[in-house]
Amino acid sequence: MHQTMNHSCDLLITADLLLTQDEQGRVIEDAAVAVSQGRICALGRRAELAHMQAAERLCLGRSLLMPGLINAHTHVSMTFFRGLADDLPLMEWLHQHIFPREKRLSAEIVQLGALLGCAEMIRTGTTAFQDMYLLEDAVALAVDQAGLRCRMGEVIFAFPSPAYASAEEGLALVRGQAKRYKNHPRIGVAVMPHTVYTTTEELLAACRDLAQELDLPLHIHLSESPAEVEACLASHGLRPVQYCRALGLLSPRSSVAHGVVLTDEELDALAESRCHVVHNPRSNMKLASGIAPVPGMLARGMLPGLGTDGASSNNCLNMFAEMSACALVHKVHSMQATACPAQSVLDMATHGGALALGWPELGKIAPGAPADMIALDLDSPNLLPLYSPVSHLVYAASGHELRMSMVDGKVLYQDGRYLSLDYPALLGEAQKLKRWVLEKQ
Amino acid sequence: MHQTMNHSCDLLITADLLLTQDEQGRVIEDAAVAVSQGRICALGRRAELAHMQAAERLCLGRSLLMPGLINAHTHVSMTFFRGLADDLPLMEWLHQHIFPREKRLSAEIVQLGALLGCAEMIRTGTTAFQDMYLLEDAVALAVDQAGLRCRMGEVIFAFPSPAYASAEEGLALVRGQAKRYKNHPRIGVAVMPHTVYTTTEELLAACRDLAQELDLPLHIHLSESPAEVEACLASHGLRPVQYCRALGLLSPRSSVAHGVVLTDEELDALAESRCHVVHNPRSNMKLASGIAPVPGMLARGMLPGLGTDGASSNNCLNMFAEMSACALVHKVHSMQATACPAQSVLDMATHGGALALGWPELGKIAPGAPADMIALDLDSPNLLPLYSPVSHLVYAASGHELRMSMVDGKVLYQDGRYLSLDYPALLGEAQKLKRWVLEKQ
Repeated sequence: MHQTMNHSCDLLITADLLLTQDEQGRVIEDAAVAVSQGRICALGRRAELAHMQAAERLCLGRSLLMPGLINAHTHVSMTFFRGLADDLPLMEWLHQHIFPREKRLSAEIVQLGALLGCAEMIRTGTTAFQDMYLLEDAVALAVDQAGLRCRMGEVIFAFPSPAYASAEEGLALVRGQAKRYKNHPRIGVAVMPHTVYTTTEELLAACRDLAQELDLPLHIHLSESPAEVEACLASHGLRPVQYCRALGLLSPRSSVAHGVVLTDEELDALAESRCHVVHNPRSNMKLASGIAPVPGMLARGMLPGLGTDGASSNNCLNMFAEMSACALVHKVHSMQATACPAQSVLDMATHGGALALGWPELGKIAPGAPADMIALDLDSPNLLPLYSPVSHLVYAASGHELRMSMVDGKVLYQDGRYLSLDYPALLGEAQKLKRWVLEKQ
Repeated sequence: MHQTMNHSCDLLITADLLLTQDEQGRVIEDAAVAVSQGRICALGRRAELAHMQAAERLCLGRSLLMPGLINAHTHVSMTFFRGLADDLPLMEWLHQHIFPREKRLSAEIVQLGALLGCAEMIRTGTTAFQDMYLLEDAVALAVDQAGLRCRMGEVIFAFPSPAYASAEEGLALVRGQAKRYKNHPRIGVAVMPHTVYTTTEELLAACRDLAQELDLPLHIHLSESPAEVEACLASHGLRPVQYCRALGLLSPRSSVAHGVVLTDEELDALAESRCHVVHNPRSNMKLASGIAPVPGMLARGMLPGLGTDGASSNNCLNMFAEMSACALVHKVHSMQATACPAQSVLDMATHGGALALGWPELGKIAPGAPADMIALDLDSPNLLPLYSPVSHLVYAASGHELRMSMVDGKVLYQDGRYLSLDYPALLGEAQKLKRWVLEKQ
């Protein structure tokens, strides 16, 4: 047990099994976790915390209590496009189905889409995510309401977006967001240039400078597909990683989404820069972008985050599905059943995501860490029998075994009920979203 | 509507959406399906069936009613090994963890493992499966109790198994099973030699003859890994498909599981023989066996079935996870986002499975077909909004959205409750299974 000075707490949670993901990787049976002011203040065997005076108690019984998962790259609002257009090549999908509709986005639609995506993430065990989208202030409103934790970023293009008339205005918008959310307990801002092919050298440099000036993380899509690499070579004579490195964009404050098409030299450069990579296996598979060299990243001591990308190219925002896809695709791609073992994949979905979001205190249950936790039903038939909880999380769980989700010490979902969202109302809004999308054909 | 002679039925089911998977691929809103004596007798829009006199009614409201999925290759009892040993190469996994324990199997353990696997399959939308294992009569007992539909097969080796002292005894056992289950409404028998490397030429010929004599399907693991192909070439001078074809094992009555390592000539031979292939993407990925040439099969007009393989190498028995893995892995492997589109994958999990099991009337909701159906909750957040039900089934659903499962017109699961199984008792049995497995180390 970790002793605390204080023998009282706001909430004492008990569960049959606790997976801490702490530095020692402890798994504790018949466990208890004490929470005060949104943070974990003590944990251990239930008997060891028996002396705690708790204002409230939550007895989870036959559950696995564990850190909430971190979705390190998504476009949460894009739930409105879920299943609208599948089985298409990336460029046809983007240019014929996604971009024409995105041009006409409104803040209301973005917020509704984000609420729906938040509901799905809460329901499937994600407690924090990194989001890049248009009109990101509307996403922040949804996140604030849903109670999730989010690193948000207005997507920055070299051309106008529904949120701004010029890139300069876009950067000013980010500046305003950084100010607005400076003291928000669960929302942080990042600078998010879209890609190397939708920005300019000057704009990327300005993004880099803004991130430095405001001490914010920087997040960009990088090396997602062979076509992107070809275009970058044609335009700049450099591959995307080389180009970003030359512009000083790769640093411990930055994270790059995808990193699919990478040479060994680029992998070395990414590792050396200590920037973070976010792997999106299901989206990369569905769009036939390729398979990121994740075993090569792990071999270099990198710990990538895991992300779902948008529901439009996945088609879910479920980190359990993502963990499973990650472990499986790298084994068969490398023809090594030992590649991407379950513990590494779970580390990616927790610690790796925490690093990518710039909040390294997330992704574990340890004294002082924010109380972002989930509990899964150990009586679900697909989790029986139980030899290794880590194996079950990666290879057997669906995420729908979720019994409880908590962020910052507040319960967001418990046993079939959303506590932060009005789910029946949201069902009606989903119909509104569908009508909007079909009207914009 | 399909008119029936009779205007009365045992059960009238209504649902907001019906996906028939019938020959016209009809999707019907505000639908009704009438069931009598375990078979579908009419379907159409609800208003069209308003005249039906129903003994019972089942109103599913905001649900998608569809055919139950067919798991065309599994070893259902192997749930007892779920998560026991992961991230290992096939041969180490088999020889150090699986085979030593399987030598000591008892009928009781096989039946308990099968019950647990049946509970998982019922819970995640599978209504029929093809099973190959040791002491298969114990599986049949579990299937009979669980109410699922099963094509069962005692695995035949050239050496003794816990079920028989010699291959001849093994074949006699199959003969007995065929007799015992001849008139069972939901259980059928097949002849199931294990592989080309655990049998002899004479034994495979005897299996072929027995299948012909008793008019039973034949099922075998074939071309699962590069090592199998090498060994077959070394022993017989032929690749596994060539070897089986030479022995007359490939015919419309046979199905082969895996079919991972195949040349174009072997694909042609399989197509020509009109035998059925069962694809097991998650198991093949987890064991790093390779990626079966499914797009090549589809291009040849073949419709493979889909299977989970055992929970020991998956680690679940969830056909939704299997559909998703199938669609995604072939896109990225072929670098074609158009490969394995959602409809083809759903066809594999329904019609393809029906063909592999030798029961072509399964896998669709049509007059005369057995009433094997499932209903999914359309209000699940990961299924919102809904543009294409087929897309959601393959790319967004987890299987845990299941609200109802029915086989032969009998409800097996509804809204959180198992009707054929005593699930609380089964939870206790799972602990017994775990103790048995850990004692046999």
